[in-house]
Amino acid sequence: MSEKNDHDSEYKELSGAEGTKKIGEMIGDIHIAMMTTVAKDGSMSSRPMAVQDTPFDGTLWFLTKKSSEKIEEVEADQHVTLTFAEPKDSEYLALKGRANISSDRTKIKELWNPLYKAWFPKGEDDPDIAVVKVDVVEGDYWEATSGKIVMLVKYAAAAATGGKVPVGEAGHITV
Amino acid sequence: MSEKNDHDSEYKELSGAEGTKKIGEMIGDIHIAMMTTVAKDGSMSSRPMAVQDTPFDGTLWFLTKKSSEKIEEVEADQHVTLTFAEPKDSEYLALKGRANISSDRTKIKELWNPLYKAWFPKGEDDPDIAVVKVDVVEGDYWEATSGKIVMLVKYAAAAATGGKVPVGEAGHITV
Repeated sequence: MSEKNDHDSEYKELSGAEGTKKIGEMIGDIHIAMMTTVAKDGSMSSRPMAVQDTPFDGTLWFLTKKSSEKIEEVEADQHVTLTFAEPKDSEYLALKGRANISSDRTKIKELWNPLYKAWFPKGEDDPDIAVVKVDVVEGDYWEATSGKIVMLVKYAAAAATGGKVPVGEAGHITV
Repeated sequence: MSEKNDHDSEYKELSGAEGTKKIGEMIGDIHIAMMTTVAKDGSMSSRPMAVQDTPFDGTLWFLTKKSSEKIEEVEADQHVTLTFAEPKDSEYLALKGRANISSDRTKIKELWNPLYKAWFPKGEDDPDIAVVKVDVVEGDYWEATSGKIVMLVKYAAAAATGGKVPVGEAGHITV
């Protein structure tokens, strides 16, 4: 019930730096995303993933196990959607992006923090750690106003994402 | 970092009525799902949707506008994933299902409640209201234990869903 074309009158657009800031604040507050990938059978798999605590610049980084299902799914289909929800504030964010997997040791060391020990007890040198890099292509942010959830921000990445997705055609804002 | 194969030792399975109850409680507490559908370009679109406040029996119902993008997407591809997040309790739920659209007036009247007036000011007789019925096929539920999010419940619907998806093959619990 909350898409752009469902409530034209309430729809506001925070473009440029203001939109990026809003998205960054929400990611920073929530820091757990549901990462959705395309499964082999055509269904979509979602699981919670810890987001790196760095300012939002259009790219999000995750550490995961090489043996996890999502790696296989991303290798078969790069499309990823990340959602963030904060029920207490009625805030919702959905980011579409393209994912790339690596096992870049320098990047792993840069992203590593002691909290990851819960998943990787062997530490940052565990050879089973993989890096998932998600280049955000576009995003939508919703907030409740007068009891109704409305879309407040539409975000689209600049050509920096490699131009694989024709964001301009979707009529989104270029930040 | 939170998939079944990422933490075999912590993974617990709440099967049957216990699993269904846990899922039902979480849906009842959150009552806003992020509904993810497959977009024409192969990406995945998510948006917040109000869930009906009824006991969870494997089917979830939504009211939406016929003119919304999700209707077109579901008509092209029935796969839907619904995620629920409650950051304050570190609870996360992902349900995979198949969606069907109708404009069954009797069902609309049954599902209608005054809160929908925010989206449909004309009321329950608005000809632009559509019903989205999602038959849940399988689901995963995560919770934080000792600072680490682990999967606690795997849910799979019985053959009642029409047998379109071979849930047995995925090794999930039949409720």
